[in-house]
Amino acid sequence: MPDVIFAYPQLYNFVHEVFIRIGCPPADAATATRVLLSADLRGVDSHGVARLSGYVRLKDVGRVNATPQIRITHETPSTAVVNGDRGLGLVVAPAAMQIAISKAREVGTGWVSAGNSNHFGIAGYHAMLALPQDMIGIAMTNASPLVAPTFSTERLLGTNPIAVAIPAGEEQPFVADFATTTAANGKLEILQRKQQPAPTGWVQTRTGMPSTDAGEVKNGGALLPLGGDREHGSHKGFMLGAVVDIFSAILSGANYGPWVPPFPAYVPMPEDMPGEGIGHFFGAMRIDAFRPAADFRRHMDQWIRRFSTAATVEGVAKVIIPGEPERAMEKERMTRGIPLVPAVVEDLRQLGARLGVMLDS
Amino acid sequence: MPDVIFAYPQLYNFVHEVFIRIGCPPADAATATRVLLSADLRGVDSHGVARLSGYVRLKDVGRVNATPQIRITHETPSTAVVNGDRGLGLVVAPAAMQIAISKAREVGTGWVSAGNSNHFGIAGYHAMLALPQDMIGIAMTNASPLVAPTFSTERLLGTNPIAVAIPAGEEQPFVADFATTTAANGKLEILQRKQQPAPTGWVQTRTGMPSTDAGEVKNGGALLPLGGDREHGSHKGFMLGAVVDIFSAILSGANYGPWVPPFPAYVPMPEDMPGEGIGHFFGAMRIDAFRPAADFRRHMDQWIRRFSTAATVEGVAKVIIPGEPERAMEKERMTRGIPLVPAVVEDLRQLGARLGVMLDS
Repeated sequence: MPDVIFAYPQLYNFVHEVFIRIGCPPADAATATRVLLSADLRGVDSHGVARLSGYVRLKDVGRVNATPQIRITHETPSTAVVNGDRGLGLVVAPAAMQIAISKAREVGTGWVSAGNSNHFGIAGYHAMLALPQDMIGIAMTNASPLVAPTFSTERLLGTNPIAVAIPAGEEQPFVADFATTTAANGKLEILQRKQQPAPTGWVQTRTGMPSTDAGEVKNGGALLPLGGDREHGSHKGFMLGAVVDIFSAILSGANYGPWVPPFPAYVPMPEDMPGEGIGHFFGAMRIDAFRPAADFRRHMDQWIRRFSTAATVEGVAKVIIPGEPERAMEKERMTRGIPLVPAVVEDLRQLGARLGVMLDS
Repeated sequence: MPDVIFAYPQLYNFVHEVFIRIGCPPADAATATRVLLSADLRGVDSHGVARLSGYVRLKDVGRVNATPQIRITHETPSTAVVNGDRGLGLVVAPAAMQIAISKAREVGTGWVSAGNSNHFGIAGYHAMLALPQDMIGIAMTNASPLVAPTFSTERLLGTNPIAVAIPAGEEQPFVADFATTTAANGKLEILQRKQQPAPTGWVQTRTGMPSTDAGEVKNGGALLPLGGDREHGSHKGFMLGAVVDIFSAILSGANYGPWVPPFPAYVPMPEDMPGEGIGHFFGAMRIDAFRPAADFRRHMDQWIRRFSTAATVEGVAKVIIPGEPERAMEKERMTRGIPLVPAVVEDLRQLGARLGVMLDS
């Protein structure tokens, strides 16, 4: 069956109404909708409306609080810890990032560790909130354990993504947004759907042997840290994922490592959890806290142009600047619509039927 | 020929005297010696005394200033830009890190971008300066271009390492310190010396084809970003290296990308350089700017113990916590001495003869 194309406003209205029906205040519903759909627009289909019914199920089982009192529990001029009060990460994260931005306005930089939260959508959205403020934005989050550290057979870390958004001048901003694993889980799901093997270095079996079975995680296997194996630097991917976990959860009082709660509401929670919910970490750095913004922008333009026009290997048109493909996708999908696979459309229709919200098409 | 073993004080006295002879004030000579030898102690042999004559040659050709006036050129409560005045990076970096620490003491965190500097030794040393202050330390630097971005045949980035040091309680600190490439250049040099091939994913030819020739960089080839190729996530390694470059150099006014000056003094400088020297970036975050240090330390201990005791793949004793191998090496070499390969010993003797400094052995 072919994909079904939806205009952005169609999906916006549907998702917004779903968040309203589960009890979110209108402003929060609007924020959550923008964050969620930014994933669909940018081509990160695994983190967009495909997850909407998953968020609703978390509300159903009481793990998400639709009316959180998001609050600062500790702060200094450049830092804060935010308690997300079990809110949607889609709402907690932008609120925490705004606190980082406010602090950067005052003292040059702001750094916020947020706990007692839930899945926050795509990291890039939150990092990019800094761009219109003439700031560099950073966002990261821990996630439920799917990744084995180098030399281990146990799943102890999430795909723990890092996003860094950096303003430029005439050029478009630099936006890096990547899981600290060789491949994001979404890519494995796509291969499973197509019944295709995974490249080596993406997953391992339950005993830690190399595997090309895209469904290996279901067999007790694990995703691998960026690098794949020790010889190719997987200990570096492990270190990155570990730093994300520690900044997001041990600074904030959230759960870390194997204790991070699972996204699927039907999966039992880990025992002896050491914290509350999942954790995120955000940073904002005012450019002119370092040098005049105009100078910085001019040199960023020069950086981007030099890399953008670098000589390429045969058959490749150009070097990709981080953020370029997602921006092109966003432009295309905003005008031509967002294609959804039939299984996702059906899932949304069932969700809509249950909540009394109609999905136009 | 076998390695020659030197006691730490022997090497300390020699290196310190060399720095004095090239004109460093005694306090700077002591700092530079400690930083340089920390690499030898920690087993990062490529960044220790093996580079000493390289630093001296940079002084000889006027690229290093032995008596720099390191100064803050711009600051806010949580940030500073430092101009290294062409000093040894071994001296500029600890000075800049101390500024980050001072700012963290005042406002919770401190962030310093340092330009007009030179090679700073191992990143981990600088990050670890934060540990005794109950702070998390971060250090990174750009470096002369050896690395091709994904899809490019040009060498546009350095191995651009990142170090993150995080205090624990009863456990030893977590210290990540890694190049953002699949393998550090030093590992390729070791393979070349042994005339052994490199694993796939470490280097490419001058036309961007996969290669296992450890000497490929000499043929116009390039090191590869962490991940190796696109299928294995090299675009993520490229993003990491790019962020290090931008934070280190575009925030500070140093050179970036292909314009970073080469370490070997005999290699001509790039044309049309957009900045001054090379750049570094440092961060310090006070733990109690987020939560009481005792709570943080207790959870870090739990994190480390959980990962440390994780089930392993067959034949491996335990999961390695970042910093563990280097700490064990430091302990061993501090007591049993530091082994140097004969070529390095000969290089040091020639340097000593030229400067009138005797290398005891």
